[in-house]
Amino acid sequence: MQRRQFFQRTLAATAFTAASTAGVSRAALAGLPEPVIRTGADTAAPWLPPGVTGAGRPYRPVVTLNGWTMPFRMNQGVKEFHLVAEPVVREMAPGFEVNMWGYNGQSPGPTIEVVEGDRVRLFVTNRLPEPTTIHWHGQRLPNGMDGVSGVNQPPIGVGKTFVYEFVARRPGTFMYHPHADEMTQMAMGMMGFWVTHPKGRHPLIDDVERDYCFLLNAFDVEPGAHTPSINTMLDFNIWAWNSRVFPGLDPLVARLGDRVRVRIGNLTMTNHPIHVHGIEFEVTGTDGGPVPKGARWPEVTTDVAVGQMRQIEFLADEPGDWAMHCHKSHHTMGAMGHDVPTMIGVDHRGLVQKIQRLVSR
Amino acid sequence: MQRRQFFQRTLAATAFTAASTAGVSRAALAGLPEPVIRTGADTAAPWLPPGVTGAGRPYRPVVTLNGWTMPFRMNQGVKEFHLVAEPVVREMAPGFEVNMWGYNGQSPGPTIEVVEGDRVRLFVTNRLPEPTTIHWHGQRLPNGMDGVSGVNQPPIGVGKTFVYEFVARRPGTFMYHPHADEMTQMAMGMMGFWVTHPKGRHPLIDDVERDYCFLLNAFDVEPGAHTPSINTMLDFNIWAWNSRVFPGLDPLVARLGDRVRVRIGNLTMTNHPIHVHGIEFEVTGTDGGPVPKGARWPEVTTDVAVGQMRQIEFLADEPGDWAMHCHKSHHTMGAMGHDVPTMIGVDHRGLVQKIQRLVSR
Amino acid sequence: MQRRQFFQRTLAATAFTAASTAGVSRAALAGLPEPVIRTGADTAAPWLPPGVTGAGRPYRPVVTLNGWTMPFRMNQGVKEFHLVAEPVVREMAPGFEVNMWGYNGQSPGPTIEVVEGDRVRLFVTNRLPEPTTIHWHGQRLPNGMDGVSGVNQPPIGVGKTFVYEFVARRPGTFMYHPHADEMTQMAMGMMGFWVTHPKGRHPLIDDVERDYCFLLNAFDVEPGAHTPSINTMLDFNIWAWNSRVFPGLDPLVARLGDRVRVRIGNLTMTNHPIHVHGIEFEVTGTDGGPVPKGARWPEVTTDVAVGQMRQIEFLADEPGDWAMHCHKSHHTMGAMGHDVPTMIGVDHRGLVQKIQRLVSR
Repeated sequence: MQRRQFFQRTLAATAFTAASTAGVSRAALAGLPEPVIRTGADTAAPWLPPGVTGAGRPYRPVVTLNGWTMPFRMNQGVKEFHLVAEPVVREMAPGFEVNMWGYNGQSPGPTIEVVEGDRVRLFVTNRLPEPTTIHWHGQRLPNGMDGVSGVNQPPIGVGKTFVYEFVARRPGTFMYHPHADEMTQMAMGMMGFWVTHPKGRHPLIDDVERDYCFLLNAFDVEPGAHTPSINTMLDFNIWAWNSRVFPGLDPLVARLGDRVRVRIGNLTMTNHPIHVHGIEFEVTGTDGGPVPKGARWPEVTTDVAVGQMRQIEFLADEPGDWAMHCHKSHHTMGAMGHDVPTMIGVDHRGLVQKIQRLVSR
Repeated sequence: MQRRQFFQRTLAATAFTAASTAGVSRAALAGLPEPVIRTGADTAAPWLPPGVTGAGRPYRPVVTLNGWTMPFRMNQGVKEFHLVAEPVVREMAPGFEVNMWGYNGQSPGPTIEVVEGDRVRLFVTNRLPEPTTIHWHGQRLPNGMDGVSGVNQPPIGVGKTFVYEFVARRPGTFMYHPHADEMTQMAMGMMGFWVTHPKGRHPLIDDVERDYCFLLNAFDVEPGAHTPSINTMLDFNIWAWNSRVFPGLDPLVARLGDRVRVRIGNLTMTNHPIHVHGIEFEVTGTDGGPVPKGARWPEVTTDVAVGQMRQIEFLADEPGDWAMHCHKSHHTMGAMGHDVPTMIGVDHRGLVQKIQRLVSR
Repeated sequence: MQRRQFFQRTLAATAFTAASTAGVSRAALAGLPEPVIRTGADTAAPWLPPGVTGAGRPYRPVVTLNGWTMPFRMNQGVKEFHLVAEPVVREMAPGFEVNMWGYNGQSPGPTIEVVEGDRVRLFVTNRLPEPTTIHWHGQRLPNGMDGVSGVNQPPIGVGKTFVYEFVARRPGTFMYHPHADEMTQMAMGMMGFWVTHPKGRHPLIDDVERDYCFLLNAFDVEPGAHTPSINTMLDFNIWAWNSRVFPGLDPLVARLGDRVRVRIGNLTMTNHPIHVHGIEFEVTGTDGGPVPKGARWPEVTTDVAVGQMRQIEFLADEPGDWAMHCHKSHHTMGAMGHDVPTMIGVDHRGLVQKIQRLVSR
């Protein structure tokens, strides 16, 4: 499922220079880690670094719903990742492919998974037809690494590579997404998850047996089309989880008695009240940090606002298949009914025959 | 206001068989409790069972805004209810009647009110023109009783009856609604309240003098029409409380010094920030359970997301008439201004005469 | 920037009578405080009363983003303000002026800043072309002062003055806005901030070095137009902070190590998830009061619902320029892309020449 493409040669051909926006030196470029590319939209097995390296202690890795965690390269104590922003074709469900923009072959991009205290270096190569940046949503970092085009850096030009580097100072659930032409680039699927595991035991972060994550995103794809209308503000017709829809979504599986954590982020244009059947849960953390235990509420539906991360946790103590969905009924059912007239109460006996007379076969 | 209709014969005529989806046996059908039907849209007096029965201790019953609590039948220690899903005509305000789908003569359906530990049996008869189910939102129950069509059960066919049975394991504020063709059936008004009173004193559930409940729902009814457009996702024009709008809504009354609880659920397609004038309140519980006292926030506006229940509580210590409304100004005012051009700043002196010349009288 | 206009004579000319809705007597009118009017849309310096007067202790005044605090007049121990509801022209950004309705020359109106226990008298003069009222959102006050037209008072007629008077009983963050023709009047920009400082030290209200406030509002101004379409319910194109947009917004400045409070209210038609880069914050209070310390959550994005106030607080311990924005990407970017077709993937080489051939120059 994962193939590695060595395209240093291609990168060299796209005119890296010392004058690139990032000022990546030729020496650094020569040492650019190979970007790991992913094909396929199934849920990858959780990924653990081969040995306990850098600041890392062993941790239970997350499982990205219909996604994957990208391996890193250790370079003198620094965890190095190479993200390639590029057009991709995402299979949203079997038989339904959409032209998106993503990272390393897919939308959303790979999950970045590190440990509190890790120094992280992220090479970002722009293969899009327009400039981009990456904002590391929720992270504490130097101002110049925050990724807002025009505020913290010039945008990364077409064909250029920019290097972000910072220490993952606090454990938690984060995301990354562009902060340049935001409307277009997020509407096209550019986003990814970031999990920083605590370095040691943390009083507010419990061990769990299952740890899942996904991002809510939305697209407006006209029937018959394959490219989202990126100017749509409200009237989306594809409400997706990790750029994937029913029946293409994998289940979140747990054993009876497991403690389960699900980390959910929202990069659509509206709130999504995520409802879980069969159990009650608590929000144990946000992208701002863990919620104090005394401040937690019991819920069966938590409203995830745009640009928020919510960690929910529960005990899987009821056997069976339980639904989990956004409770807005049009989002639950998907693109089933827009612009169809109401037929309730209409006498449509004989209608099929009438239509058949009009339509030549 | 409440008339009881004995239509066992009708039920028998709609072809109950042992092969019905629910597998209700002929013997059970013979003993089906009569469905209690309600006409009228005024607020019914609170209903208390005639004696303390089953697991029940005496409790203060809720008052359903412009709705009612359905009586049950005791059958060998089980509280039995009969819900009939059917087309209804709801008076949203005097002179404004809308074709809806509901339960037992009205939309929303009757409030189900039981006590923690009660065993409850709910017969659901489908008199709609399409299959349905009922999901008991927020309840702990066996997986096969959860009501998601295609996941937990086949849908209840037209004319069929399905029996749900479970123990009301935890006290709280719940709702019920279909989980089959959700978009259509909730847009048509199918929903109801469920309150489980605590069996004994509960450290997080205080006694109150007033206990009201209602569900937020929305409809798109074109001017001149009487049937909602069920495919509308965003641009609703009727923002209702229990399928009722101003000036048809009854007041929530309290005596000076009363402690008041209001339970609010949302089954529309957007958040509703419910604002109460004159006092501050706390959210004391959700459909997930009571909120720990130390975790409560003071509010004058609480945002009720779709698929959420919020119990708010306050001391009615300010005399007078105080407004309570969704703070979105189009929802506060109702269907007053959509698709009307802006006339602000337009000089419309002489306009009436010009129109009168054009319009023959 | 602030000029005082003595227009008692004008007021007299607009037919004040003892029969005005408020029953303001001729004697009282003679003593009406002069309305302070503001021109310009820059952020005014914080305003402190000249001496510690009335119930007031010295306090750190708030700074209203691209707005101002209105001075009061002391009258026998009562703080008197004069608000004039009137059409205004607001500069939303340099070169972009919009016809709004506001108070005292601007939209939003001036911030009212008092101290817990103060008796406050507010004269409201209506210079709009239609009736209005003011609701003092979140305040404890006598029922007749609550400002809901048709519930608590008749509306203030055109040219009339109404007097509101009450004690600012609890400290906190409030707002004021009309409660008559709400849809129109709030869509036209009528709103203002109200801060009541605690009288003494308050266990839940910390001292801060910086205290900013602003209201979120939205307008629908067609390209080429200057007057908002006041019937728009969803599809707004101008998402503003204090009726001001980028690049016209002033920065919120802090010194390294400052404790910063930002008070945010929302009077649009949708939730706004306010995201702050670089730090984590807590919601320390709402319009309902201060949040107990044990109930606070760490956040980087807080969802401000319509009709809610949120006080957020953080330590400014990271140097640099940090973005702060609503995380809905269309709101972040503004009116950049609505109703523009998707050009992604379209080959538009040669397009400019083709257009130039069609368009005469």
